[in-house]
Amino acid sequence: MYQKRTDLATEARELWNESAAEKTVLSGVIAREYMRESCRVTHIQITDEQGAKALHKPVGNYITVELGSLGEQGGFSDAVEAAAAELMPLLAPAEGGHVLVAGLGNRAITPDAIGPAAIGQILVTRHLIDHLPDMFGNLRPVSALSTGVLGTTGMESAEIIRGVVDRTKPAMVILIDALASRSLSRLCTTIQLADTGITPGSGVGNSRAALNRESLGVPVIALGVPTVVEAATLLADLSDEAGLPAPDEELLKGFTGNLIVTPKDIDKNIAEIARVSAFAANRALHPTLTQEEIAAYLA
Amino acid sequence: MYQKRTDLATEARELWNESAAEKTVLSGVIAREYMRESCRVTHIQITDEQGAKALHKPVGNYITVELGSLGEQGGFSDAVEAAAAELMPLLAPAEGGHVLVAGLGNRAITPDAIGPAAIGQILVTRHLIDHLPDMFGNLRPVSALSTGVLGTTGMESAEIIRGVVDRTKPAMVILIDALASRSLSRLCTTIQLADTGITPGSGVGNSRAALNRESLGVPVIALGVPTVVEAATLLADLSDEAGLPAPDEELLKGFTGNLIVTPKDIDKNIAEIARVSAFAANRALHPTLTQEEIAAYLA
Amino acid sequence: MYQKRTDLATEARELWNESAAEKTVLSGVIAREYMRESCRVTHIQITDEQGAKALHKPVGNYITVELGSLGEQGGFSDAVEAAAAELMPLLAPAEGGHVLVAGLGNRAITPDAIGPAAIGQILVTRHLIDHLPDMFGNLRPVSALSTGVLGTTGMESAEIIRGVVDRTKPAMVILIDALASRSLSRLCTTIQLADTGITPGSGVGNSRAALNRESLGVPVIALGVPTVVEAATLLADLSDEAGLPAPDEELLKGFTGNLIVTPKDIDKNIAEIARVSAFAANRALHPTLTQEEIAAYLA
Amino acid sequence: MYQKRTDLATEARELWNESAAEKTVLSGVIAREYMRESCRVTHIQITDEQGAKALHKPVGNYITVELGSLGEQGGFSDAVEAAAAELMPLLAPAEGGHVLVAGLGNRAITPDAIGPAAIGQILVTRHLIDHLPDMFGNLRPVSALSTGVLGTTGMESAEIIRGVVDRTKPAMVILIDALASRSLSRLCTTIQLADTGITPGSGVGNSRAALNRESLGVPVIALGVPTVVEAATLLADLSDEAGLPAPDEELLKGFTGNLIVTPKDIDKNIAEIARVSAFAANRALHPTLTQEEIAAYLA
Repeated sequence: MYQKRTDLATEARELWNESAAEKTVLSGVIAREYMRESCRVTHIQITDEQGAKALHKPVGNYITVELGSLGEQGGFSDAVEAAAAELMPLLAPAEGGHVLVAGLGNRAITPDAIGPAAIGQILVTRHLIDHLPDMFGNLRPVSALSTGVLGTTGMESAEIIRGVVDRTKPAMVILIDALASRSLSRLCTTIQLADTGITPGSGVGNSRAALNRESLGVPVIALGVPTVVEAATLLADLSDEAGLPAPDEELLKGFTGNLIVTPKDIDKNIAEIARVSAFAANRALHPTLTQEEIAAYLA
Repeated sequence: MYQKRTDLATEARELWNESAAEKTVLSGVIAREYMRESCRVTHIQITDEQGAKALHKPVGNYITVELGSLGEQGGFSDAVEAAAAELMPLLAPAEGGHVLVAGLGNRAITPDAIGPAAIGQILVTRHLIDHLPDMFGNLRPVSALSTGVLGTTGMESAEIIRGVVDRTKPAMVILIDALASRSLSRLCTTIQLADTGITPGSGVGNSRAALNRESLGVPVIALGVPTVVEAATLLADLSDEAGLPAPDEELLKGFTGNLIVTPKDIDKNIAEIARVSAFAANRALHPTLTQEEIAAYLA
Repeated sequence: MYQKRTDLATEARELWNESAAEKTVLSGVIAREYMRESCRVTHIQITDEQGAKALHKPVGNYITVELGSLGEQGGFSDAVEAAAAELMPLLAPAEGGHVLVAGLGNRAITPDAIGPAAIGQILVTRHLIDHLPDMFGNLRPVSALSTGVLGTTGMESAEIIRGVVDRTKPAMVILIDALASRSLSRLCTTIQLADTGITPGSGVGNSRAALNRESLGVPVIALGVPTVVEAATLLADLSDEAGLPAPDEELLKGFTGNLIVTPKDIDKNIAEIARVSAFAANRALHPTLTQEEIAAYLA
Repeated sequence: MYQKRTDLATEARELWNESAAEKTVLSGVIAREYMRESCRVTHIQITDEQGAKALHKPVGNYITVELGSLGEQGGFSDAVEAAAAELMPLLAPAEGGHVLVAGLGNRAITPDAIGPAAIGQILVTRHLIDHLPDMFGNLRPVSALSTGVLGTTGMESAEIIRGVVDRTKPAMVILIDALASRSLSRLCTTIQLADTGITPGSGVGNSRAALNRESLGVPVIALGVPTVVEAATLLADLSDEAGLPAPDEELLKGFTGNLIVTPKDIDKNIAEIARVSAFAANRALHPTLTQEEIAAYLA
């Protein structure tokens, strides 16, 4: 059967529920929902291998923050505060130490550019703390890096980050990356935080490309934003919704991989949520600075 | 019934054929196909109002050039020559006179940016011919303009172009614009040339926005490139292909307008076909210059 | 003698004073200075042809606003309010009518890009007032346009603007453009407002390129920002300052025209003052909207 | 005395000659000149510490290729071939092994952007050789990286490169970077190749920032392009040329560091010579591929 594609744990849980027989209980997964500012938060905890297998994701915490309406008065500010508040506890293992923020993805492909776009707005301080201890001594050391992509560097992002981690010894890594969703309404409106890093291919194989505690040697937080819906996933979903028989496997084959469904003006949406992502990271990393102070430092 | 969206006359004819009862003949439309270089050309001539009504397009000529594989050796050069050869006869009414090339669309929205992207590569000569008659006196006067879009200028493209036409008196206008297709395989691989200009809303109403001989006072050629497939059109098409009942009207409603299906790396495709479009126009406007000479002037 | 280059009336007056014999009085020019917010304002009024000849500028008003430190807390907001307050009285002749804001200059040359960069941040309303009279009916109709440059359009900016003015009938035109200064300290820190439009070559000849009331048929305000110091001007100034004999004419010849002295990171400075310029125009054109409301509309 | 700033060994030698007493011989430096294609090549060899001290550069080879007129027919191709021919012998120590090409500098500052701009046009193959040995097995493994700058990453370029070198084990590193020249005529018209890497501050101190064999553990080639002339250097030079007394130290102080003299349209020049630099590196790294084949792979 065609496997609908999503990188969001909350959608993986929905998919499981849809496919499960009525009385089955999803074991190894704890979910709860609550509001934070004006944003709905869903916290999915995968507690054991049974849950990991059901949702195709490693054991760990997956927090989805729905950002509300960024266009409205105060919407940007609320979204940043909500995402920052959810991110902050995940930073606890770093204990105030140096954090490296790495942006994944391809600057030249719009829906893939969220990592590089956010990295340009990370408030980096590592280099300032030594030189200007009076001004910056009370801030956490933060560094930032865009890795580019295999096709333009010839190196896996994991190789580059691993090399930089070995040399600069951060206490933690935050990755910013684009995700696939099954739902158009989640595009550029949701942030997923996960304390499991990124494990391409659901943890199976390809350990060379994995970006997690195991491969990098330090805790890894993933901040992901859904920016694409694969066309094949959308078609399969629509057929279900409409009560139609599943589309032919052959038919879907032409749509897998590279074809996506997207709002026409995605360029603007990407720019906006990249800024929310960067500011959420900045606020969580430097909780003594306000959004305005961070904006002033970045200008 | 949901109206599948296409701006290509050749697809409008396909749609008519699909919907028509078996024996009906499409009156008022003449079509022929042939090869030009390695490119398939379809020439649709709408000869009367009956044909115009059937295809939802004004009476005139619509020439589709399928560009072949731009990535292959010689592919770019072949595509330029084929499109230029089809464009050249359409320029006859200008009789060597001044031609204004105008790029429509929004530079900030990737699939809409083909007009501005192509305009940046048009070889303009109008200002040189007076100043450097020895070097440029034997070239045709060409000027170029990107109009921006209503939301960022507060003016219809037609108002701007009309104003500039009144002042600079070109003998003809060429418009470069993005189109919608029903077919993914035509995205960024096809150029449609039309001697009818652009009449938003199939010629019905909105004469303020029309860009044609009637509104501008000179002949208007449209050079269009399909860069988007509307998600709703694709869904409706797929259901037909798969022999499924037509998707619910309600279901499609959520997909009309702004949602598109696109290759993920459309940025690169747009850049490439914008260059093909500009070079085809350059070659047709300045047939004494080779592609290499044009490239050297533009550098 | 080498003529030091400046487009600022206040500097032209300085140059006259430096070159004049001690007791001479500069006739036909009235100057006064005052503070507006934290910004120093110099208002030069050229009252007759004698003054015009002395300062190489047409009769009219030239207001220089020194923007203070944009980087400091409140600096951006102060600069916008000061420039808007000086601009507002110059808009009186338009009497609430439609204003066209035109950006001159070349988007691809950093120190020349201020016009296009500012235009992208002008709040245009002309198209909204008809369609959404409840929301926008109380705002002034504003339209905006970047003209490109002769080398890429084949048309003088004046031709394009004249064509658009004839068609859309604004009550006034505001031009945004880059200027040359003699002083490094004024680069990207000063705005000059003038009610004389722009007359290339000090009003001598080239009426085809002039952008003023005479050529456009409506009042024309110029909002200019010094972004370059010509290398030859700087050298001549430095020799004077240092008490050295004037540099050889031959020596300076190599530096005229295209060679400029600039801060290395001018890209960032241009982006910043383009935003100040656009917001000053927005505030003066829509005085009922706050800076925050304008920013929200533009997002 | 004010120290005129240049990063070019050939200019450092000129400066030494200008300041030296007539009969003094510059010991420890061997220079020779010759033509390669239509390009003048100057090869400076610093053979001992006495030469190193005189020219403020480490012992090693410094090859300057003057690119001729890039705008003329065949100019680009000639420049690429000449620079590639000079680069090739410097690659000998890598013996066909993996080469990492790193771009230094700030993408957001035009005259500093040559490194990132060139990196985008390096033909990377390291990732292809394993996956597609039939197509790419006979090519040298090449990887590429833009390091960003301290202010936006919080990390020295040297730290990032060292980390990546430790992890990916290249046999050699090529650095692409912007240089300062004393001469306007060398801006964006010259490439300097050096087998000494880059040692900020003339090898004195700051070993953390050095990018050379000592710090990276493998041979390091620097490919540098002069893109700026410091304003203070130019002034001092001009005074000398004009036979004027040296400008006052105080006067020059305002010009050191950040103020540069540059052609106004430097954006275009940077793009052009970044492409020459990348293609020269590509040709030297993959001598079996023609310029056309490289261009086709990159498209």
